[in-house]
Amino acid sequence: MFTLEATSGQARAGTIKTAHGEIKTPIFMPVGTRASVKGLWQEDLDELGAQIILGNTYHLFLRPGHELIERMGGLHKFMTWNKPILTDSGGYQVFSLADLNKLTEEGVTFQSHIDGTKHLLTPEKSMEIQRALGSDIVMAFDECPKLPSTREVLQRSLQLTYRWAKRCKTVELKPHQHLFGIVQGGLELDLRRESLQGLKELDFPGYALGGLSVGEKNEEMVELCKAFVPEMPADKPRYLMGVGKPIDVLNGIKAGLDMFDCVLPTRNARNGQFLTHAGPLNIKKARFVEDPLPPDPQCDCRVCRRYSRSYIRHLFNVGEYLAGQLITFHNLYFYMQMVKNARTAIIAGNFDDYYQTFYNHYTSNQWE
Amino acid sequence: MFTLEATSGQARAGTIKTAHGEIKTPIFMPVGTRASVKGLWQEDLDELGAQIILGNTYHLFLRPGHELIERMGGLHKFMTWNKPILTDSGGYQVFSLADLNKLTEEGVTFQSHIDGTKHLLTPEKSMEIQRALGSDIVMAFDECPKLPSTREVLQRSLQLTYRWAKRCKTVELKPHQHLFGIVQGGLELDLRRESLQGLKELDFPGYALGGLSVGEKNEEMVELCKAFVPEMPADKPRYLMGVGKPIDVLNGIKAGLDMFDCVLPTRNARNGQFLTHAGPLNIKKARFVEDPLPPDPQCDCRVCRRYSRSYIRHLFNVGEYLAGQLITFHNLYFYMQMVKNARTAIIAGNFDDYYQTFYNHYTSNQWE
Repeated sequence: MFTLEATSGQARAGTIKTAHGEIKTPIFMPVGTRASVKGLWQEDLDELGAQIILGNTYHLFLRPGHELIERMGGLHKFMTWNKPILTDSGGYQVFSLADLNKLTEEGVTFQSHIDGTKHLLTPEKSMEIQRALGSDIVMAFDECPKLPSTREVLQRSLQLTYRWAKRCKTVELKPHQHLFGIVQGGLELDLRRESLQGLKELDFPGYALGGLSVGEKNEEMVELCKAFVPEMPADKPRYLMGVGKPIDVLNGIKAGLDMFDCVLPTRNARNGQFLTHAGPLNIKKARFVEDPLPPDPQCDCRVCRRYSRSYIRHLFNVGEYLAGQLITFHNLYFYMQMVKNARTAIIAGNFDDYYQTFYNHYTSNQWE
Repeated sequence: MFTLEATSGQARAGTIKTAHGEIKTPIFMPVGTRASVKGLWQEDLDELGAQIILGNTYHLFLRPGHELIERMGGLHKFMTWNKPILTDSGGYQVFSLADLNKLTEEGVTFQSHIDGTKHLLTPEKSMEIQRALGSDIVMAFDECPKLPSTREVLQRSLQLTYRWAKRCKTVELKPHQHLFGIVQGGLELDLRRESLQGLKELDFPGYALGGLSVGEKNEEMVELCKAFVPEMPADKPRYLMGVGKPIDVLNGIKAGLDMFDCVLPTRNARNGQFLTHAGPLNIKKARFVEDPLPPDPQCDCRVCRRYSRSYIRHLFNVGEYLAGQLITFHNLYFYMQMVKNARTAIIAGNFDDYYQTFYNHYTSNQWE
């Protein structure tokens, strides 16, 4: 399903083929937790050039229910998004969102954060839900320990993740679906190797790095990726889960990762944060109250072509929906352009120049 | 500023000329209270064919302040809407929204519903604010009694509204601005005549009917309009303020009114109500949970062309912004098509047929 097309240093450009179309990597995947990227129409996602979006197993299982979505023709049809969809396994959410969760070899018992109903999520159940949703890329059900954790905890966890991955493989998915394995092991290179080795024996069409950006220092994540990613199969897509800030994504690309997702550009948008070429811009700041400039003067998205900081600050200040809509659109445009330009640079063989220019400009933090 | 182009019964088609473009009447004006029609981009309003939108003096005075908007180049530039804008006078809101309001000959003292600050709104102050906003159509500052009220109250009120209108006229507006007078008088035909007579002597370029849809029975409003509207100057635009449901707007057109505004299509959208050719459809109802049909099968808007009832119901149910965005877009499209088709029918001389067909279908209430 993956073709590697070019490299520049460790950075890679490639193509992932799915039944719902091709994905040109590196790619950032907007997060559509509950079958919607908050505040955007699917038309907006098309316009933004989103090639693949993420759906959330835990949330869709609870509401409206995967069985309903399957009866409506699957997640693509339900939300009228005909390009690729990746669904996570629900593992992360049952620990971070649900109440009173309890881990056993069998799976995780948890109480819904919505109505307190009790459920058991197992590897088999996660597969059943994702099969019903019909996503193109299905994630294995894993356990993701917070960092820091002891080596003992990390090892026990990656071994459980391995046994769960094995159980996931026993469940038949729909013909168009691809199941990715998730490498755990914290910041310990040897544990990451142990985890990957097990998964490779199970032979997945793609591998994800899980358990990062969960409490460790940023430099530690960067170091781990730099050292470990080259050991991941070169002929398979490599996905860094839930990461991250713009520079984190660029660091991931630099390390040789292909796929990224994060709620940051959309969630921070709803808190008034524009991501710009010169660093984050908090529209709430008093200095923007009469600022007629576009949010990011170097951006040509349709927010920056039309709306001023002053106007958007007003919208945010009075609580108008439109503030979140505009900032979300811009922030995703920013990510989409960032990874698209990274791809162009990789193909041209000058990714390091692109990285350095972007990095210098972004970290100048002009709006602080 | 107004050219009458065709009539069909009492119904009229015409053109209002403003410095920001022409308005083909009859027209419905989406309400953009705080410089935004909630949940829509200005691009959406363009696409919907909105020819003029409404801004709110009371809200914009409080936040971000009319002086700020003036410094930013006026409301058109501030919100990047280059077509006509009408602003109300703030009179209605100081009574309905503000706290501890007190009416005197001078004006209305009120406390902001946001921060409790005390303000005095007078006819002169309302003009000053609307001048700063730079709207194309400025509404006189009036007093609007709730119905039922005694004849005595209504008469005292319309006479105060007359004296205030006179004071409004003394304030110089910007050259492109047109000040409309507001006729009061409740449901009493003779009082409406008295009110109109006074305003006519002041000679406004347009006249509004205020004080309707404020507690009276619907038939009473219809009767009053039917009897009174023909007495309003035929060569000036006639505006029915804050009204109403689809059939109310059609009744207004039938009576000879040209301009309408109401928060109903946008506010009800945020409560899950689709307006359809076969009557209102409440997306919350259980019967739509697995309904693959578009919200209004007779509608060709881009919501109805793409999204299903089942999906929108899910969005609404989990509290996704997109639900309100989609329903708002559809509902405004519905109103825009309704008045556009009314205009076509008036020009073709068969408004009554159009009215009857629309009425029969709409009141069939298929989704109840």
